[in-house]
Amino acid sequence: MEFTVTATDSSSKARAATLVLPHGSVETPRFMPVGTNGTVKAVSQETLERLGFRLILSNTYHLYLRPGLEVIRQAGGLHHFMDWSGNILTDSGGYQVFSLAPLRSVKREGVRFRSHIDGSAHEFTPEKVVEIQATLGSDIMMTLDVCTPPNIEWGKALEALEITTHWARRSVEHLDRVGPVNGSLFGIIQGNFYKELRQRSAEEILALDFPGIAIGGLSVGEPKETFEEYLSFTAGLLPKNKPRYLMGVGTPEYIFAAVENGIDLFDCVFPTRVARNGAAFTRRGTISLKKIEHAQSFGPIDETCGCAVCARYTRAYLRHLFKAKEILAPMLTTEHNLYFMDRLVNDIGLSIREGSFVEFKREFLMEYSHTKETIL
Amino acid sequence: MEFTVTATDSSSKARAATLVLPHGSVETPRFMPVGTNGTVKAVSQETLERLGFRLILSNTYHLYLRPGLEVIRQAGGLHHFMDWSGNILTDSGGYQVFSLAPLRSVKREGVRFRSHIDGSAHEFTPEKVVEIQATLGSDIMMTLDVCTPPNIEWGKALEALEITTHWARRSVEHLDRVGPVNGSLFGIIQGNFYKELRQRSAEEILALDFPGIAIGGLSVGEPKETFEEYLSFTAGLLPKNKPRYLMGVGTPEYIFAAVENGIDLFDCVFPTRVARNGAAFTRRGTISLKKIEHAQSFGPIDETCGCAVCARYTRAYLRHLFKAKEILAPMLTTEHNLYFMDRLVNDIGLSIREGSFVEFKREFLMEYSHTKETIL
Repeated sequence: MEFTVTATDSSSKARAATLVLPHGSVETPRFMPVGTNGTVKAVSQETLERLGFRLILSNTYHLYLRPGLEVIRQAGGLHHFMDWSGNILTDSGGYQVFSLAPLRSVKREGVRFRSHIDGSAHEFTPEKVVEIQATLGSDIMMTLDVCTPPNIEWGKALEALEITTHWARRSVEHLDRVGPVNGSLFGIIQGNFYKELRQRSAEEILALDFPGIAIGGLSVGEPKETFEEYLSFTAGLLPKNKPRYLMGVGTPEYIFAAVENGIDLFDCVFPTRVARNGAAFTRRGTISLKKIEHAQSFGPIDETCGCAVCARYTRAYLRHLFKAKEILAPMLTTEHNLYFMDRLVNDIGLSIREGSFVEFKREFLMEYSHTKETIL
Repeated sequence: MEFTVTATDSSSKARAATLVLPHGSVETPRFMPVGTNGTVKAVSQETLERLGFRLILSNTYHLYLRPGLEVIRQAGGLHHFMDWSGNILTDSGGYQVFSLAPLRSVKREGVRFRSHIDGSAHEFTPEKVVEIQATLGSDIMMTLDVCTPPNIEWGKALEALEITTHWARRSVEHLDRVGPVNGSLFGIIQGNFYKELRQRSAEEILALDFPGIAIGGLSVGEPKETFEEYLSFTAGLLPKNKPRYLMGVGTPEYIFAAVENGIDLFDCVFPTRVARNGAAFTRRGTISLKKIEHAQSFGPIDETCGCAVCARYTRAYLRHLFKAKEILAPMLTTEHNLYFMDRLVNDIGLSIREGSFVEFKREFLMEYSHTKETIL
C-alpha cells in the first residue's frame, strides 16, 4: 500500500491523496459504499463499476456467519465470490458483535457471541479476525476492537480501550506469523468520549505502526457537536503520512466535518439504506419520494444531477414504484444516492486541489440545508 | 400495424412473421415480459433494452387503479411515464377483475368491482377500457372480456361468451367514435372448454374484423392435454393473415405447444415470478438456486447461456444472495430467466425459418426434461 498526499487545504486540515491498493488506486477523500453480505444492496457490481467506485466495504461478521469462510475460500476469496475487481475494505466484525449478536461476553482472550441468524455459538479473537480477513482477501483489514456506546463511565471506557490495545498488539503479531498477505491492517482508536482516553488510545495504537488508522466509536448516536469535538481532537493526534478512516459517516454534513478534519476514507449504510425507504439526495436536501407532492412531478430527482436515473426517470414514476412496492424503486434510488454521494466527495476533492474547499463547503451546505424535510 | 408471415413450418402450423407496431418492428414468435405496474419486476428499462426486448405487456387494471389515469395522462402516456421506447401491449383488465378484485358483478353494461388495494368501487365497460388503453397509449389494446375458470357448466360458459361478443362489438364501435389512435385493438376468443362455444366465439369475433386475435381462457389451470386440445381447435379456426396472441403462456413446454399451433405472441409472469423465488431456467430444466447443493457450486446457472449474469456470477453466489434475502438475487435471476426465454423463442423462430422446428423442439425438450426438479 502506498499513500501520497497530493494537496492540502490552507484554511482547514482537509487534504487530497492517492491511495494505491492491491486492486487499483483510489483518490481520497473517498466514500465507500457498504456491501454487508458481499453485495451493495439493490445495485449490481456492473452498476458500481459504471458509477466509478473502486473501493467498497464489506462486513467480516456477516460473511463469516453466511455463507461462511469455507465457501469464500473455495471461491478464491471475496473478490472472486462476488466478482468485484475493485478493492474491498473489511471491518473487524467488532461493531456487529456489539450491536447485533446476542449473549456476547468480552474477555481479554476474545469475544464470545451467538449468531443473530441461528443462535449458534462463536468466538472472535484478534488472531481469528485477522485470519478471516486474510481468507476474504481484503485489501484493507481492521483489527478487532471493543466498541462502546456514548455516556458510559470512565472505568468502562478505559477497560474497552485497554482490551482494544491488547487486541491490536496481538493482531500485529499474528499478522507477522500468518505471513505475507495482500491487504494492509489498520489499527482502530477508541477511548469513548474522554479526551484523556482518546489520547492514550492514539498513543498506544500509533506505537504499533499500522500503515493506516481508523477512528472508531464516533458517529454512534452522540450529538453532532460532540462528534465534531472528538473527531477534531482525535484526528489532531494522527500522523500526516498515513491514511485516516472514519467509520460510520455518510451524510453530507458529517462528510464535510470529516474531510475538514483530515479524514481520507469514510463509509456508511446511510445513502443506500434510506434509498430503500424512498429518501433521495438532492442539492437542496433529502426528499421523500413516497410523498403525495411527487405524484405528478415529472422532473428528475435532482435537475443538477448527472446520473443515469435522473437522465431517464421522473419523481412521479419513482413515487409510483415505491407505492406499488416494486423492486425497481430501491434499485433506482440507491443508484442515484450513490452517484450523488460520490459526486459530492469528488467535488470536495477537486475543491481541495483548487484551494476552494471552505468556499465549496459553505455554498453546498447553504443550498443543501434548504431542505423542507428531515429524514435522519 | 402490419403483419407479414415470413416463414412457415412444413410439419406443423408454426410460423415466423414480422409485426410492425408504432414503436418498432417485432419478429414473431415472441415472448412478452409482463410489466404489471409499468415495470417488469426487478429489472430496469435499460436491462430490458440490453436484452433486446421491443414489446412488453402491462396491466390496464393495475395502472388504472395505481397510479391512476390522470398521472399517466399528464406524463404523456405509459411509454413516457416509464420511459420505455419499445412497444406496449395492454390487457383489458378483464382477467384481473375476475381474479383479483372482490365483490365483482357482471352485467351486460359492464363489470362493477372493488379495488383490491383500497376497496374503492369502480366499473369497467368495454368503452371505458378502450379509452383507458388509448390514454395509456398502448400499441396493442385488448377488448374487455369475461374470463371463466375450467369446469363451469355450459350455460355459464355461453353467457360469458355472449357478453364477451357484445362487449367486443361495442369496443369496435367505440374505437371508431374515439377517433384515430396509434394502437391496434385485438379481439379475444372465449368459449371455455366447449368446442361448440369456441367455434361460435371465433365466428362472432372474427366477424368484427379485428387486426389481431387473442385466445383467452386457456392456461387457466386445466390439464396440459386439455390445453393443447383446445388450443389446437381454437387456433385452427383463425385466419392466417392476422397475428395470434395466446395469453398466459410462458414455460418452455407451453411455448412449443403454442408455436406449433401457429401462435405468434405470448406472455406470462412465470419467468419473472419464479426468478424472484430462486428458480432459474437451464437447458436441463429449472433449478432452485436456494438449495444446499448449490452452496459450493462455482459455475454459472447454465454453462451454455450467453447472458451477462452467467458470464459473471456463480450459483454459489446467487444462493448466498437468496439466503441473505438480498435484492440482487431477484435482479440477477430475473435477468437470466428473461434472457433464457428470449433466446429460446429466438431459436424457435430461427428453426422455423430454417425448416427444422420439429427437430429443434424434440432436441430441446429431450434435454430440458432431464430436470431433476419440478418447480411448477
